[in-house]
Amino acid sequence: MNLKYQAKIYVTLRPSVLDPAGTAVQSSLQHLGYENVEQVRIGKYIELMVTASEEDEARQQLDRMCDQLLANPVIENYRFELIEVEAQTGVI
Amino acid sequence: MNLKYQAKIYVTLRPSVLDPAGTAVQSSLQHLGYENVEQVRIGKYIELMVTASEEDEARQQLDRMCDQLLANPVIENYRFELIEVEAQTGVI
Repeated sequence: MNLKYQAKIYVTLRPSVLDPAGTAVQSSLQHLGYENVEQVRIGKYIELMVTASEEDEARQQLDRMCDQLLANPVIENYRFELIEVEAQTGVI
Repeated sequence: MNLKYQAKIYVTLRPSVLDPAGTAVQSSLQHLGYENVEQVRIGKYIELMVTASEEDEARQQLDRMCDQLLANPVIENYRFELIEVEAQTGVI
């Protein structure tokens, strides 16, 4: 039986890495009058569906996907959540 | 007294809007061997700190920030979470 999961992946810049886009957004917000805003950091939010035989397998695959493609481990951190959405009966 | 909140903002493309970047990432993942992946959608994840006198005020300001700058309401949805991080005593 295959299980289908929705993965929600959050990719953020490591705290030590400068974020010029975040700084620009913060400056724009302050020019719009939101002077009570600070520490703006911009990351990526990725949703995808993954099919696996068990949750551990899905987690291991997602770790590899993040390391290989979705995040740049040198400057970014990632974390993800898995939500089981549906069971699929496979052909035996 | 001012309250300080961390806001976590998720900006996603509306379901009816095509996501060429998501399609490209999905294709790359499949070329890397992850053929069990589908429906890849790429959004933004923004973190910021906001100071407000109460949570409702912070929520209203964040709604306006998202509508005005952080999201494009024509093609994107947004949602956010607020986490109170610290109380600041103001000068009376």
